[in-house]
Amino acid sequence: MFGFASDNTAPVHPRIFEAMQKANMGYYPSYGEDLLTERAVRLLCKLTGAKNAFFVHTGTSANILGMAPFLRPYNSVLCSHIAHINTHECGALQRATGARVLPILTKDGKLRTEDIRPQLNATGNYHESQPAIISITQPTEIGTLYSLAEIKELADFAHKHGLLLHMDGARFSQAAAALGINPEDMTSQQGVDILSLGGAKNGLMYGEAIVFFKHTDEIRYHIKQGMQLASKMRYIAAQFLELYGTDLWLELAGKANKMAKILEKGLDARGIKAAYPVETNAVFVPLNPATREKLLKKYMFYVWEEEKDICRLMCSYHTEEKEIEDFLAALDEAMC
Amino acid sequence: MFGFASDNTAPVHPRIFEAMQKANMGYYPSYGEDLLTERAVRLLCKLTGAKNAFFVHTGTSANILGMAPFLRPYNSVLCSHIAHINTHECGALQRATGARVLPILTKDGKLRTEDIRPQLNATGNYHESQPAIISITQPTEIGTLYSLAEIKELADFAHKHGLLLHMDGARFSQAAAALGINPEDMTSQQGVDILSLGGAKNGLMYGEAIVFFKHTDEIRYHIKQGMQLASKMRYIAAQFLELYGTDLWLELAGKANKMAKILEKGLDARGIKAAYPVETNAVFVPLNPATREKLLKKYMFYVWEEEKDICRLMCSYHTEEKEIEDFLAALDEAMC
Amino acid sequence: MFGFASDNTAPVHPRIFEAMQKANMGYYPSYGEDLLTERAVRLLCKLTGAKNAFFVHTGTSANILGMAPFLRPYNSVLCSHIAHINTHECGALQRATGARVLPILTKDGKLRTEDIRPQLNATGNYHESQPAIISITQPTEIGTLYSLAEIKELADFAHKHGLLLHMDGARFSQAAAALGINPEDMTSQQGVDILSLGGAKNGLMYGEAIVFFKHTDEIRYHIKQGMQLASKMRYIAAQFLELYGTDLWLELAGKANKMAKILEKGLDARGIKAAYPVETNAVFVPLNPATREKLLKKYMFYVWEEEKDICRLMCSYHTEEKEIEDFLAALDEAMC
Amino acid sequence: MFGFASDNTAPVHPRIFEAMQKANMGYYPSYGEDLLTERAVRLLCKLTGAKNAFFVHTGTSANILGMAPFLRPYNSVLCSHIAHINTHECGALQRATGARVLPILTKDGKLRTEDIRPQLNATGNYHESQPAIISITQPTEIGTLYSLAEIKELADFAHKHGLLLHMDGARFSQAAAALGINPEDMTSQQGVDILSLGGAKNGLMYGEAIVFFKHTDEIRYHIKQGMQLASKMRYIAAQFLELYGTDLWLELAGKANKMAKILEKGLDARGIKAAYPVETNAVFVPLNPATREKLLKKYMFYVWEEEKDICRLMCSYHTEEKEIEDFLAALDEAMC
Repeated sequence: MFGFASDNTAPVHPRIFEAMQKANMGYYPSYGEDLLTERAVRLLCKLTGAKNAFFVHTGTSANILGMAPFLRPYNSVLCSHIAHINTHECGALQRATGARVLPILTKDGKLRTEDIRPQLNATGNYHESQPAIISITQPTEIGTLYSLAEIKELADFAHKHGLLLHMDGARFSQAAAALGINPEDMTSQQGVDILSLGGAKNGLMYGEAIVFFKHTDEIRYHIKQGMQLASKMRYIAAQFLELYGTDLWLELAGKANKMAKILEKGLDARGIKAAYPVETNAVFVPLNPATREKLLKKYMFYVWEEEKDICRLMCSYHTEEKEIEDFLAALDEAMC
Repeated sequence: MFGFASDNTAPVHPRIFEAMQKANMGYYPSYGEDLLTERAVRLLCKLTGAKNAFFVHTGTSANILGMAPFLRPYNSVLCSHIAHINTHECGALQRATGARVLPILTKDGKLRTEDIRPQLNATGNYHESQPAIISITQPTEIGTLYSLAEIKELADFAHKHGLLLHMDGARFSQAAAALGINPEDMTSQQGVDILSLGGAKNGLMYGEAIVFFKHTDEIRYHIKQGMQLASKMRYIAAQFLELYGTDLWLELAGKANKMAKILEKGLDARGIKAAYPVETNAVFVPLNPATREKLLKKYMFYVWEEEKDICRLMCSYHTEEKEIEDFLAALDEAMC
Repeated sequence: MFGFASDNTAPVHPRIFEAMQKANMGYYPSYGEDLLTERAVRLLCKLTGAKNAFFVHTGTSANILGMAPFLRPYNSVLCSHIAHINTHECGALQRATGARVLPILTKDGKLRTEDIRPQLNATGNYHESQPAIISITQPTEIGTLYSLAEIKELADFAHKHGLLLHMDGARFSQAAAALGINPEDMTSQQGVDILSLGGAKNGLMYGEAIVFFKHTDEIRYHIKQGMQLASKMRYIAAQFLELYGTDLWLELAGKANKMAKILEKGLDARGIKAAYPVETNAVFVPLNPATREKLLKKYMFYVWEEEKDICRLMCSYHTEEKEIEDFLAALDEAMC
Repeated sequence: MFGFASDNTAPVHPRIFEAMQKANMGYYPSYGEDLLTERAVRLLCKLTGAKNAFFVHTGTSANILGMAPFLRPYNSVLCSHIAHINTHECGALQRATGARVLPILTKDGKLRTEDIRPQLNATGNYHESQPAIISITQPTEIGTLYSLAEIKELADFAHKHGLLLHMDGARFSQAAAALGINPEDMTSQQGVDILSLGGAKNGLMYGEAIVFFKHTDEIRYHIKQGMQLASKMRYIAAQFLELYGTDLWLELAGKANKMAKILEKGLDARGIKAAYPVETNAVFVPLNPATREKLLKKYMFYVWEEEKDICRLMCSYHTEEKEIEDFLAALDEAMC
């Protein structure tokens, strides 16, 4: 059972599939020069208040190629030590740009200006990598959320120091749904410069968007040289048009968040307290080795922090209450 | 009308769509650790006599990441001057590996050992990039074919000099269909070391395979760091299983090749001779500027060699005789 | 006054100058194919028990290019958070190799196996950079020393886990002099695989050596492509032959270390305690902002840790007791 | 005998040595923050009409790092197919920048606008590397010279198309001496944007300058990250101050050029005609395999073009007429 392993183990949502099917008629220009792509880009710009948007295949490429136009090889990107770009992209940033990921220790996955400030001492010293971008994940890799005010503070801080603010929004819709706000509020209104807008973790088959609030002429070259230019881009565009052109993104993200709350409650009732506030669709709980070993025979999930026995349980738009009940029953059996 | 612009302007074949739909049930492990992917890999290995296979999203990434495990930054890849890796990948190889594409002037897009030999003078001279891989495209970018004997000669030559042979098979099935041979004959039997096996140009939505006839432990890291690891890989696997697990690849490729022959005949009847032998699904013909300008108002296609007025007309599995007739009628009108 | 700012502010030692002058006769083959270079390489191999040695221009290039043959872009290098490769090479490693510097928090600049072990959890997980090299600095950037047993423990640990041990020996001779051992004891005898052997910080004009205890065929290409191949290498070779072909290295390093002890004593007498054990030629002491501001008007030195007011005072072979007395007198005046 | 193998086989000129000796007094700030470096930079700016200048160690690094601030990874540098950056830098450009060297076939080593123009078709097409810099070598690798008018035409052409003009001046002084003009005339007056100003091929020990006629804030970071920041830069500065602060550069370059003319005459008298006009200090002549094999036993030199038996004979400031006579006598003996 892979339902709680990640939100990308879920199937494609039927409406997304239908939208791709509808796009599957006749010839379309390739490489994104088609009308569907144009419409999808316009939609994303309107939704977020952005200047432009581009489609790529993976979350890692959205992060890296989105930042590439604004990075020189001697730059660094400041992020939380648990940021995906730091821990789970196998060093993609440095290979694609020469620049460096500079992790900052965070308690709850959230960067704060006071933790960033010491890193700016390097500015102007040519012996050291030069900070150029602050990258935050919303929601964070442990499911916590930046408030709008916190995003604004980081954006203002970044701009004051000549840096840009990048938001890794692999689960952007889960964040927006949880905060009850629209995508524009969480980005352009607070000063975000670059957004990686996720799809695969909220019901799409593949495809992520790079959304720019700051102009760049370079991005098409980075996408092509970065090996990410989709020849049949209409199928990515069709998915995004369906997800973000209707309330589907909100519905699916809201469902995922709700399921996480139900799971949290069930665990709590068993005396298993969430290690981090359950604000979106992830639940982090301690499970001792003996218990989890038994449980892992039936359910796949990840041990997140070995030392503290903390495990990650993800919900998705596809999670059903029945699945949670079954999981909790299996847990009851496994507990020791 | 984009039907002759490229074989990637065609829609996804209905059977491919159905296969993806069938895979769209329940939870699957992500990142290719699922059973569909395992089956697809086994299929490709059996079909070609390969050691292993991996899926990525684009043809460029299949080429570059497939070669990456065998390249150091000081190496060079020898290829035809019209090779896709030389002309249409925006320098992806050098960015991902530090290595260099070293184009060799070819008459018909086909590399010959006598043209490669002078480049080997650099071997052992540390002032110069060190040749490591010979890369051929089968069929070539102008639709011509290497015979099995020619592939074997290149493979033997490569191995004798400590190099590897890479085959860019973006239109691999069109080549196999035209030669009337099976995939194994064209690869492992002749000594090919690395194959980029295309999908999108023969009816798939997205996905290309990197097929290894030589062992490497490194590839998974290159794919991940190269930003190409698909989270929901089952959908790529499902497409490949349908295309190559049945005779569909042969049927579609054969159809594309056949249409090109019909188009060639129609052009020939109008006194327009193919610039290169029409051996697969591409027809290259001279069209003077005045004629093509008129024609381009109705039909999109590419001017391949400006100086010689040579234009490229691609057929695909989706091309119908009626479309060719219409195109020829439009040409008749445009001719001047 | 720049005497305490760094050990590379000192002039070239007269005997080094003479050695270069003696090498300045007639024509020599370029790019290190000369007899002086051959002799210098043989000398270094004999001295350290190495397999081979190569000359480059800077300490940074010795570190980076020495490791390059053993790194793939998806690898990481584990080092102390204060390691020069982490803090003062402006990200040279990632630009030259694509690999990542992964700093580990250390108390005294020294890596310990228990601090390294958790990083090895990444091994085999293709989402994460793969540890390939452990890099230590001997003496560390704060002047402390690894004992021979500690080096051996690290080498054994590295080899057991399939990693290599690199030693940044920018001040290698100061370390050997302090430990009272010969270069072989500190390297090949303990299992070091790669050594950056410094020169400029002990009386040379320019030139550092990359010393290999493990064979590689690749290094010449990395040096050339890495822009470090010296055309007139005889002048680097001549310097190394003079420094390491006689006891000059020991004499100069011993002098530098002795001066640091005298400086430490003088500071201690004023109630200023060294922040780290003074084991080689660096003295780290706290100096409050008001005091150091006054002192910095006469003497250049670096504030190492802003938060703790710790300043670095370097001694060199060229430091004289009189200079230390003058410095202490200036300090007396500045103290507040 | 290595006198004709290259102009970097000659020893350091005595006046250069003395200048370094004079700089060898007391402490100097490191990394180029010293007064000698400041003076040398000012001198070079005045001499050439440049905005700024920086010192590095090797010719390759001067070329690559000088262009780096103006290159993105998707760019290309257009140059002659015999350009040093294309043939003898082991792919340094692509490794340091991700950008590509795009060689253009030239008859006499000189680029012409009509040969460059077709390459500009790629501009704006994101499938192809984007031309950003035209790089010429003055004198060329076969000793020929661009006239001032030719340089101006290339600069104007470059700027008109949004490109920059880089000049590889490894033998800049030989060119200026041959043309009888001052450095400013050959650079800022004609619109050169970046100059690699050589030293080692005209009597220096080591050190090359990157001279900018266009402003960049980035260069110090590229030099440091590019592993080229000299800690004891005073010794490079001292050499440049002596060479270019007096007429020494002109005297030495003139001598080298003159010797080449004498050598040419001697060869001509033996019926061996120069393959290219002898305009600076290189003589290229055909020598059949039997002859050169004998000659190579006594004299080291390079076979430049194997197919045409063309060999390169370099003269330097250090070449004496007697050496030429001896060489010719040896040739007489070897001829067959």
